[in-house]
Amino acid sequence: MRAAVFRDAAIEVAEVAEPVPGDGQVLVRTLACGICGSDLHAAKHAPRMAATARRMPGRVPMDLSRDIVFGHEFCCEVLDYGPRTARRLKPGTRVCAMPLMPTPAGPRGIGYSNEFSGGYAERMLLAESLLLEVPNGLPTEHAALTEPLAVGLHAVAKARLSGDEAPAVIGCGPVGLAVVVGLREQGFRDIAVSDFSPKRRELALHLGATRAIDPAREDVFAGWAETRRAAVFECVGVPGMLQGLFERAPRDARVIVAGVCMEPDTIEPLFAIYKELELQFVLGYTPDEFARALRLLAEGKVDGGALITGKVGLAGVAQAFEDLANPERHTKILVEPWR
Amino acid sequence: MRAAVFRDAAIEVAEVAEPVPGDGQVLVRTLACGICGSDLHAAKHAPRMAATARRMPGRVPMDLSRDIVFGHEFCCEVLDYGPRTARRLKPGTRVCAMPLMPTPAGPRGIGYSNEFSGGYAERMLLAESLLLEVPNGLPTEHAALTEPLAVGLHAVAKARLSGDEAPAVIGCGPVGLAVVVGLREQGFRDIAVSDFSPKRRELALHLGATRAIDPAREDVFAGWAETRRAAVFECVGVPGMLQGLFERAPRDARVIVAGVCMEPDTIEPLFAIYKELELQFVLGYTPDEFARALRLLAEGKVDGGALITGKVGLAGVAQAFEDLANPERHTKILVEPWR
Repeated sequence: MRAAVFRDAAIEVAEVAEPVPGDGQVLVRTLACGICGSDLHAAKHAPRMAATARRMPGRVPMDLSRDIVFGHEFCCEVLDYGPRTARRLKPGTRVCAMPLMPTPAGPRGIGYSNEFSGGYAERMLLAESLLLEVPNGLPTEHAALTEPLAVGLHAVAKARLSGDEAPAVIGCGPVGLAVVVGLREQGFRDIAVSDFSPKRRELALHLGATRAIDPAREDVFAGWAETRRAAVFECVGVPGMLQGLFERAPRDARVIVAGVCMEPDTIEPLFAIYKELELQFVLGYTPDEFARALRLLAEGKVDGGALITGKVGLAGVAQAFEDLANPERHTKILVEPWR
Repeated sequence: MRAAVFRDAAIEVAEVAEPVPGDGQVLVRTLACGICGSDLHAAKHAPRMAATARRMPGRVPMDLSRDIVFGHEFCCEVLDYGPRTARRLKPGTRVCAMPLMPTPAGPRGIGYSNEFSGGYAERMLLAESLLLEVPNGLPTEHAALTEPLAVGLHAVAKARLSGDEAPAVIGCGPVGLAVVVGLREQGFRDIAVSDFSPKRRELALHLGATRAIDPAREDVFAGWAETRRAAVFECVGVPGMLQGLFERAPRDARVIVAGVCMEPDTIEPLFAIYKELELQFVLGYTPDEFARALRLLAEGKVDGGALITGKVGLAGVAQAFEDLANPERHTKILVEPWR
């Protein structure tokens, strides 16, 4: 089958082995798969990511001498089942799933693994136990937003907000926007966001933010959280963001670190100490949060369409990686491998 | 009066101006004042500390071209009162107080300020509103431990423990030991500590720890917190500690950063992200915690004597700063300026 593979530090279209479903696995056709900021980071920092994974017990590092197929934000269609499956959903059914494959050796990530290809391929394998049927009436391209939306819901859940905090979202890429949606869903009606891009700020306001700040001109914390505790969602994930927050966040702020910074970072702890800041690092989501994200999209509570700014076939993935650098032009590009 | 002053990056004994109590202030005689690890750090990193304070709105940096008298862990005796005081405690009464002076321009720290000398001096000024009478029967030298004990109680309070966590204390200097006491007071009966020094580990066990690990030989997290969430108290405060914990702490651990690292530090956020760690930076204490620390000492619930390993006069302060580098020999040295 055809796939956009990560090979020699670049994305290219190649013919790869047809996946064959094993025990408990399902063969699916990829209908749409979003390009995640983490895919861009991974393409840039793959050797570091692999080296870091080697230092983490229990993680299986990517072998960069072999092909990797990225893509973990997918909506697919059931094609066929492997052995030891209940075949609950008939072929043709549209499904979403957490990008995770249970194996006897432990769960493996789909999309950053040599073993399990991600959604930048015509077909892929999923775990039957994790399949969620896409509700009727929900467009495929919106269903593909389930995963990034779940990331935002999870960040908000881990923030354990009591409801009287002043939430501020730093960075309005897909993660930041998903956090805005999560905050609205939790009942917050007063949400500040900060992003250099006018287009991204506009999108954040469209999705429920109430105050959009250009950090080049204004400090998101000025006149914010003066009587309430600040809950700051760091959704950028590049070096320097944490120290910037240490310096600018108000005393006692709770910082939820949802941006995935893959490089070493330098901090001056004294700032965080003087302010008694709290940092909660977050990643991923629970199965419940994932299912809730799909439900929110299905109920039409999130304008998924506003996030999707482009669609490409496999041949367009490499260019899409470049194009996503421009926040004015793009938020989420979907890969449609059947194009 | 005589004082051990910090001048030209060294401690020396000098004659300094006699303090005169202003509105709401009390003139006291210093009976005993502990040397804090932060004083050692401050002596080493004073220019950085001052530079950092200049970058923090509302903080008054030390002017290092002028003398500073350190010392914020004191037990004193009331000598005289300034104007606008209620003179509630009669001269001769022994008192402790938070090392803070309210001024019309905001509170100022005692001991790291050009304006308000600390306890390495024969006399000092305190705020009448903050005086706590030392209960009868509590030795002066134990009362001088109120401040460092309050630091430990505060760290434990900010950890918001539910009671079923597995607490681990990294570093058994005075802060780490005070955390052990705080954990015992919260009802924890299973407390792991880690320190390179056999003497410090012994002291931690004496004060209530139940498992003392030499990090050169064993990992404090091995076989720990396997079924409970780890609550890790970082009580060392030097660069590299945070990254070390990112790498070794178990998933979902809550790290309470009580060590005051005054230098820039490098972290690899990816480790904290994968484990969804939580960091709570802490500093100081509330008035309630400070009063509770004094009460605990007065009730004999803490063997304060075990912590005190030396006493010096003003002429011995400089040498004491050197000696405290050896954890086998010293835990807490008290300065008795009247010697």
